[in-house]
Amino acid sequence: MTGTEPAARSGSRRGPGRPAGSRSGDTATRARILEAARELFATRTYGATTIRAVAAAADVNPALVHHFFGTKRDLFAATVQLPEELTAQLPELVSGAADSADDVGRRIVRLYLTMWQEPATGHPLAAMVRTGMSDPEAADILKQVLTRTILGPLVAASGRDQPGLRITLAATHLVGLAMGRHILALPPLTEAGIEHLTACVAPAIQHYLTGPLPPPPEAPAR
Amino acid sequence: MTGTEPAARSGSRRGPGRPAGSRSGDTATRARILEAARELFATRTYGATTIRAVAAAADVNPALVHHFFGTKRDLFAATVQLPEELTAQLPELVSGAADSADDVGRRIVRLYLTMWQEPATGHPLAAMVRTGMSDPEAADILKQVLTRTILGPLVAASGRDQPGLRITLAATHLVGLAMGRHILALPPLTEAGIEHLTACVAPAIQHYLTGPLPPPPEAPAR
Repeated sequence: MTGTEPAARSGSRRGPGRPAGSRSGDTATRARILEAARELFATRTYGATTIRAVAAAADVNPALVHHFFGTKRDLFAATVQLPEELTAQLPELVSGAADSADDVGRRIVRLYLTMWQEPATGHPLAAMVRTGMSDPEAADILKQVLTRTILGPLVAASGRDQPGLRITLAATHLVGLAMGRHILALPPLTEAGIEHLTACVAPAIQHYLTGPLPPPPEAPAR
Repeated sequence: MTGTEPAARSGSRRGPGRPAGSRSGDTATRARILEAARELFATRTYGATTIRAVAAAADVNPALVHHFFGTKRDLFAATVQLPEELTAQLPELVSGAADSADDVGRRIVRLYLTMWQEPATGHPLAAMVRTGMSDPEAADILKQVLTRTILGPLVAASGRDQPGLRITLAATHLVGLAMGRHILALPPLTEAGIEHLTACVAPAIQHYLTGPLPPPPEAPAR
């Protein structure tokens, strides 16, 4: 198995004596480890998943898992990669957030609901959320990935105040929406089509991302 | 222990020979069972909690638990009673939903956040949500209680279209908000005061409860 060969010295930089093709061998091994990790995190939960178990499922040495991904926490974060569909559309969404058009909310909600509906992207998302619900550490990583990758750039581009609060309000709303539609399967949400649901939810997300929020009080009252 | 005496024939109707004071004895026993059930559902999860374990914790016969509460599902539903503070304010909230004042969203969000913040009501709510997250059946009961008791009357009073969708969108948003603030403890939500957070979230809840929603398409597209 090619994946057990000693890995390159530092990340993707290769020594000159490295045989041709090893890069794609590493890529395949890395993908196999990631797939095994996603499966285990989703079925056994985060807490019960070990690097050793992931290595066994991927048929590689545990040291190789550590080499490619670092700690279990890092490995989980790596499995929470966003689907290409989303990352490809993100620049366009971000540029939309820069002007005040009432369209960013609609586009992000439609894209998000579409991703959940497509099995190729929806199943990994559901696995992530289920894992996140079962373990506070996993939830923390999930939150960081989602907010930094999607909502952070959107809010930064909008240049509005209170970016952290905006991001968090939009994120908790969107995750709650997907939980209701795809994990709890609540009929009013499962029976609504994507376009209809998008039209209902977009104003709220638009409000959080780019709308006027009341300023925080001078002395924060708890 | 008075609670183990044979229970009345049908619910709260008593035979004439029933000793005076047995009603309050029943009440105390019932309360003790409920308290034990809340504790076990919250710590052991719904799936791992049995009627027998609840009976043992409350120091009563399992048959008495069945007599008072029916099945485990019914018992869980009974533990998910809303705090008195909320039910007392509900009629006023509902009458507010009948007019179109932009105040229902603000009042329901503030009351909801206040309940989560007070230990006496917040801890049971957190236990319910944690239990709901750990078990689909528990989640279903939790959802039914919350939507029927709080949001259902609000939306019904508003007389708006698509009540089920409105209720579900508001409920998933509110539950997600409390999860973010009180279970995941996300800093932008924990650092915001109740008044500030209420002012941020109220427009979205108002939108879902009484605002104009786009009509569903004639032939629902999935």
